[in-house]
Amino acid sequence: MKKIEHIGIAVKDLNRSIAIYEKLLNTDCYKTEQVTSEAVSTAFFKTGENKVELLQATTPDSAIAKFIEKKGEGIHHIAFLVDDILAEMERLHQEGFVLLNESPKKGADNKMVCFVHPKDTNGVLIEICQEIKWV
Amino acid sequence: MKKIEHIGIAVKDLNRSIAIYEKLLNTDCYKTEQVTSEAVSTAFFKTGENKVELLQATTPDSAIAKFIEKKGEGIHHIAFLVDDILAEMERLHQEGFVLLNESPKKGADNKMVCFVHPKDTNGVLIEICQEIKWV
Repeated sequence: MKKIEHIGIAVKDLNRSIAIYEKLLNTDCYKTEQVTSEAVSTAFFKTGENKVELLQATTPDSAIAKFIEKKGEGIHHIAFLVDDILAEMERLHQEGFVLLNESPKKGADNKMVCFVHPKDTNGVLIEICQEIKWV
Repeated sequence: MKKIEHIGIAVKDLNRSIAIYEKLLNTDCYKTEQVTSEAVSTAFFKTGENKVELLQATTPDSAIAKFIEKKGEGIHHIAFLVDDILAEMERLHQEGFVLLNESPKKGADNKMVCFVHPKDTNGVLIEICQEIKWV
C-alpha cells in the first residue's frame, strides 16, 4: 500500500456537503463525477497528496443509500493506492482476506478498484486502487 | 490542511487487530502507545506519508468504548495535519464549526490535537493535529 489515496464519505446532499468540506478543508472541490455503475455522484477535494471523496447515492438501491439507511452519514471507505492491483489482490487473497470483486472494476477518478470485505478488517471497508494508464 | 496524517480505527482487541492490519497493509506496526488521558492503547502503521492508528479502550468509559458500543468497530476519526493548530482552530471557529476542545490537547504520537464536532461534518469526526517540536 503506497499511501491513502482517498477517504470516501457517504452524504445525503452532495451540493450541501461540498460547501461544508470546502470550508472545512479550506480548498475548492476540484472535480465532480457521476459513476453510473455504482449509482453515485462524487465530489473530490485535495489535501496534500491525499483526497477526500464525497459520495451521494443516485438511486435508492445504491450501496451508498443502503449504507446511510443503516449507519447514517459518515466515512464509507478508505482507499489505498497500490502499484499492481492484480498482485495486491492475489496477496490479500493468500493472506485470507475476502475480496468483494473477482477482478478489478472501473471506479471514479480514473482508477481500477477492488474492495476487501469489512468483516475481516474490524468493520472497515477497504478499497485498493490503481491509476489507469491509457497507452 | 496539509495531508491526512492518520485514520483512527476503533477496535476491541488491539493485539488481534495489529496482526490483521500487518497483513492487510503489508507492513509492521512500528509503534504502540498508551494515551492515559484518553484511556486508549494505540498502535501505528505507516502507509507512505500517511498512518493508520488502531485504538482500543482501556476503561469502559473511554470514548472508544462508547463508540464501539454504539456503532461497532470501525473508522473513528480522520486526522489532518496542519502547520498552525491555533490558527486553524480560529479559522474553523470563524467558519462556524464547533470545536470539541477549547485549546489543543496532547494526543498520541507527539501531537497537539483538536477535534471538530461531527454534527457539522456529515457525521465524520475530524481531528486536526500539529507535531510538537521540543526546543
